[in-house]
Amino acid sequence: MKAFVMEAIGETGFTDKDKPEPGPTDAILRPTKGLVCTSDVHTVHGAIGEREALTLGHEIVGVVEEVGTDVDSFEPGDRVAVGAITPDWGSDAAQDDHPSQSNGALGGWKFANVKDGTFAEYVHVNEADANMAHIPDDVSDEEAAYTTDMMSTGFMGAEHADIPIGGTVAVFAQGPVGLMATKGAALQGAGQILAVESVPKRQELAERYGATAIVDFEEHDPVERIHELTDGRGVDAAIEALGSSTTLEQCVAATKPGGTISNVGYHGEGEYVNIPREAWGVGMAEKDIVTGLCPGGRLRLRRLLRLLEEDVVDPTPMTTHEFAFDEIDEAFRLMETKEDGIIKPLIDFD
Amino acid sequence: MKAFVMEAIGETGFTDKDKPEPGPTDAILRPTKGLVCTSDVHTVHGAIGEREALTLGHEIVGVVEEVGTDVDSFEPGDRVAVGAITPDWGSDAAQDDHPSQSNGALGGWKFANVKDGTFAEYVHVNEADANMAHIPDDVSDEEAAYTTDMMSTGFMGAEHADIPIGGTVAVFAQGPVGLMATKGAALQGAGQILAVESVPKRQELAERYGATAIVDFEEHDPVERIHELTDGRGVDAAIEALGSSTTLEQCVAATKPGGTISNVGYHGEGEYVNIPREAWGVGMAEKDIVTGLCPGGRLRLRRLLRLLEEDVVDPTPMTTHEFAFDEIDEAFRLMETKEDGIIKPLIDFD
Amino acid sequence: MKAFVMEAIGETGFTDKDKPEPGPTDAILRPTKGLVCTSDVHTVHGAIGEREALTLGHEIVGVVEEVGTDVDSFEPGDRVAVGAITPDWGSDAAQDDHPSQSNGALGGWKFANVKDGTFAEYVHVNEADANMAHIPDDVSDEEAAYTTDMMSTGFMGAEHADIPIGGTVAVFAQGPVGLMATKGAALQGAGQILAVESVPKRQELAERYGATAIVDFEEHDPVERIHELTDGRGVDAAIEALGSSTTLEQCVAATKPGGTISNVGYHGEGEYVNIPREAWGVGMAEKDIVTGLCPGGRLRLRRLLRLLEEDVVDPTPMTTHEFAFDEIDEAFRLMETKEDGIIKPLIDFD
Amino acid sequence: MKAFVMEAIGETGFTDKDKPEPGPTDAILRPTKGLVCTSDVHTVHGAIGEREALTLGHEIVGVVEEVGTDVDSFEPGDRVAVGAITPDWGSDAAQDDHPSQSNGALGGWKFANVKDGTFAEYVHVNEADANMAHIPDDVSDEEAAYTTDMMSTGFMGAEHADIPIGGTVAVFAQGPVGLMATKGAALQGAGQILAVESVPKRQELAERYGATAIVDFEEHDPVERIHELTDGRGVDAAIEALGSSTTLEQCVAATKPGGTISNVGYHGEGEYVNIPREAWGVGMAEKDIVTGLCPGGRLRLRRLLRLLEEDVVDPTPMTTHEFAFDEIDEAFRLMETKEDGIIKPLIDFD
Repeated sequence: MKAFVMEAIGETGFTDKDKPEPGPTDAILRPTKGLVCTSDVHTVHGAIGEREALTLGHEIVGVVEEVGTDVDSFEPGDRVAVGAITPDWGSDAAQDDHPSQSNGALGGWKFANVKDGTFAEYVHVNEADANMAHIPDDVSDEEAAYTTDMMSTGFMGAEHADIPIGGTVAVFAQGPVGLMATKGAALQGAGQILAVESVPKRQELAERYGATAIVDFEEHDPVERIHELTDGRGVDAAIEALGSSTTLEQCVAATKPGGTISNVGYHGEGEYVNIPREAWGVGMAEKDIVTGLCPGGRLRLRRLLRLLEEDVVDPTPMTTHEFAFDEIDEAFRLMETKEDGIIKPLIDFD
Repeated sequence: MKAFVMEAIGETGFTDKDKPEPGPTDAILRPTKGLVCTSDVHTVHGAIGEREALTLGHEIVGVVEEVGTDVDSFEPGDRVAVGAITPDWGSDAAQDDHPSQSNGALGGWKFANVKDGTFAEYVHVNEADANMAHIPDDVSDEEAAYTTDMMSTGFMGAEHADIPIGGTVAVFAQGPVGLMATKGAALQGAGQILAVESVPKRQELAERYGATAIVDFEEHDPVERIHELTDGRGVDAAIEALGSSTTLEQCVAATKPGGTISNVGYHGEGEYVNIPREAWGVGMAEKDIVTGLCPGGRLRLRRLLRLLEEDVVDPTPMTTHEFAFDEIDEAFRLMETKEDGIIKPLIDFD
Repeated sequence: MKAFVMEAIGETGFTDKDKPEPGPTDAILRPTKGLVCTSDVHTVHGAIGEREALTLGHEIVGVVEEVGTDVDSFEPGDRVAVGAITPDWGSDAAQDDHPSQSNGALGGWKFANVKDGTFAEYVHVNEADANMAHIPDDVSDEEAAYTTDMMSTGFMGAEHADIPIGGTVAVFAQGPVGLMATKGAALQGAGQILAVESVPKRQELAERYGATAIVDFEEHDPVERIHELTDGRGVDAAIEALGSSTTLEQCVAATKPGGTISNVGYHGEGEYVNIPREAWGVGMAEKDIVTGLCPGGRLRLRRLLRLLEEDVVDPTPMTTHEFAFDEIDEAFRLMETKEDGIIKPLIDFD
Repeated sequence: MKAFVMEAIGETGFTDKDKPEPGPTDAILRPTKGLVCTSDVHTVHGAIGEREALTLGHEIVGVVEEVGTDVDSFEPGDRVAVGAITPDWGSDAAQDDHPSQSNGALGGWKFANVKDGTFAEYVHVNEADANMAHIPDDVSDEEAAYTTDMMSTGFMGAEHADIPIGGTVAVFAQGPVGLMATKGAALQGAGQILAVESVPKRQELAERYGATAIVDFEEHDPVERIHELTDGRGVDAAIEALGSSTTLEQCVAATKPGGTISNVGYHGEGEYVNIPREAWGVGMAEKDIVTGLCPGGRLRLRRLLRLLEEDVVDPTPMTTHEFAFDEIDEAFRLMETKEDGIIKPLIDFD
């Protein structure tokens, strides 16, 4: 079968691989729609080290091709979403309510990390009963593809932020995860949502997803501006959706004493991420810094799919480009350069 | 000054009282708009026992008339909302994060309970700095009046329900508190909101506030219907917004194992409220029953006012009737009979 | 193999059964020590309905006899504890952090409920990697047997009670679960632990496990006495460890507004469990009623075993009697009559 | 009256001041016993900037000399403890459950920061009803003095660490706050408590307070050693009780994915406190960093006093030295040099 792989650091291309076989609790999917993630691009650039002929991708929906002997909930032909993160549900970490860390830090992240990813004609899914969900009839494949990572991760950013109903929140960066954090903040009842972003198209989407004001960091110092907009109090919570030490520092400084900094950004560079000592109240201002990795699992997916089914969320305005599977290298190229106003490229496998 | 009082159980009328004086931390308000609550009617009927010449009412906004010597945040002429519940913020219970229980069960409930209420020309507010909030310019008095009890109580019902994002919730009864619980569930990111109600006008408002389906208990057994609508699973959470043992039983039965029953109803009758033993999993199904009294306080009010300011919520469709202060007895009469499709009567003090 | 079974309601006896076979993720254990639970006696009396030749028992430790092909963490000869509750870790409920409710109310309770229990020469364990734990060298089989239910359930009662450090708690009934709830309260930092009990031997053990005072309900009304001992405030939390509606009522009445009632008792009788309406603050006193079923899982077992290994807890004073497997019917008889001061009978399988 | 003051950065001495007067809700205390804190020494060295004739100290107990007109719970002659932190209970932050941050970052910290401290013949206490507690008869002044900061702060470190019952925790540094964090971990039910410390006297006290093993950082790399002692898993939680960026880094590295780093150390130096990016799982390993400032308030004090009353905790082994008020400069000198094995010097005001 055909697979789009990282051949080595900095090199990608199509290759031919054997079709995967399911173990007793596994399933094999045939992807129908997928989305390319910035983290795929990071991987190609060596963020997680050298890989050889590793199939890329972790955001897809598809049709069940084959199931293992112990799979109860799915059968061939079912239309399903599979989480970008596919935990081991019996692991210590899952028993401790941290399934995304199963069997080691970030251990639930298997696709295009410790096993082949999803950009291939067939995809192997571990613990299929627990890691996939049926897509409701009136939810499109495109919509459903957003549940696998963007909605799950972005919403988690808002859930971790512990926003009180009517509270104030700043969301730093309005890429697709940041946009879904903005929508997530609205879904947590925030009263004031400040979207920190300088790109007009992203500002526009942020407002669509519930931002009550835009903080353009090219026009204002974002920390000062957030204090102005909150009568000098600082926000109840700040969400870091970029993955930069500077942004995390700004989050700490923009948050009130007793508030929460919720990190969803992937911090790819440097030895340290810095906490600004004074703004952090010398370690005593009760500004907690919390982090998370995309939640996976059937239950999470089903809940996110329900929000699509009931039209509470529409993620499709984030799809700025569309490519056939054959053209996926062009999608990767655009995600790298961020040119042409790209937010998310949709991949069509049919 | 003129005050509308409970003269004895079952009797109300206007009387003349002395204008109240502020202690050092208190304020005196002149009401502009108010709302009549069903619990006012319960009080008149003796729910909290005999009272003599007790001024009724607890939901008002107004203008500051006078402040005590130690009040820092307000001055005469300020337009403010005051919580229906006005806690003692230094009390043990407030230090324990249960301010509404300050100095005894329901001890934060002072208006028309342990001191004169709000339906008078002037109203005394304890700990004014902590119990009042300024109304933003673009929020009307009518809107703001809903923050004092209906929004605070109804939203609390949803907050206590611990609804996961995309989760399922049933809200039993769509009076004004139930309607705000429905809106609160939407503001907590619920994916499926089932409003249990048989009155068409209330069903219509429920849908406006975010109900995804109506369960008409005159057409269906509500517990069975909720199981049908949730693929047999039961809801993640049920909110009791009526105050009936039967309804609480239905909440327990409609909720999945591991779910939450959030009570906001005032249970006014009977020796016991009953938990159905088997549906409760013989005490082991992890169906928690949580309760609350309207949260008060400046911070809560300010957050709720922000939701009005940002047009996240519009409570005014619940105002079905309007009366001058002079006509308030007619408002009480209608709240008792529930005739003429009444939901909330607005009282105009000017 | 030999098994001690419930032949029908009210009838028990030994029978011969086939030795169980492991599926791919299962294990077969050979028990070494076990404990008889009061709930076994309830089962015999029909609490969960008719059963035919169902092997009884759910509290054992033993030696691994055989493992399925996909079991990674265990091999024949390993000395292990297995939880009384053996959840399905991929289920919706487990993903929702309620593993004991996996696949239905109380669904993690499999032994002597929906499959053969543990009082046999060989025992089948589902999802062995996730549901068993190795016993450390310096922990005896007898000690370890207490982790499987008594410590896990009793401690859960205290964990759910949300006791503040230095807070006050009443534990109603000092059977083995109540005694472990008392110890659990001490392990949560309670400052005042009131043990409600009238049997001298149990009072004595309660003090050993950390009770700071005994409330003898034959000498005092327990609710009044608890108020006296807490300067009229009521306790921060009450734990119901009996399974009686009357006791639950007392828990509600003994708890302060804003406190927690944590139920661990199995409520075996009646249509309803009653909440006293006024003591419950008409549904507004923020007295939450929470419930739970014994937590299972490798991680839980390992943590409890660590407390034994470090000598933080010694459960063995609860072992009042000891029987060979052959004599287990006598242990059942004593657990039913509660004669001879029995608390827990240890069963020796060797 | 006589007061021990910071005259300027680096200079201390006795001076004469006017006896303070109480406002309506205040009290004046006459100290009987006090403790000197390392943070007093930091203050003298300029950690919070220049001060002029500021009375030092924040840890005392004493006798009520005088109360304001609105104080209800205390009268002259009462023996009381007063929190090191004396929040404004009506403030936004207190209403938000962060009273120690009332009216600004660390705003509950008033003594020897924004007003005169406690090392004087008379001490002014704001909101006396809410910020003081009666000392039970069988608790000594010396014991009670430890509730005002050391026990409250150290225990908070353990409470914030969210330690599961039977879980593992490392406490970095065993000064008096670290020792109380160790005891706090025991009071939260930890199964393994690793005390990181190199001073023999402190190691010995750590074991007395519940440490199950000592990690001597002069003999081992503490992160490696903690991994060894936890079978390679890392601890469930780490507590930083020193106030050093290096130690915080070690805490992050020593904690498992999905664990908690609880900071109680005062970070007095540098622009940044550093999070080690890789050990932090690139911001996705669910290692949360939480912080706090000593909790104050009557309820907190009463709960801590109860632990003394019931002999659950004995803090007095930490008293290594004793001085008369006249000799307090010698206590400051020793706290600075840490010579003579000093842990806490007790000051006798009588």
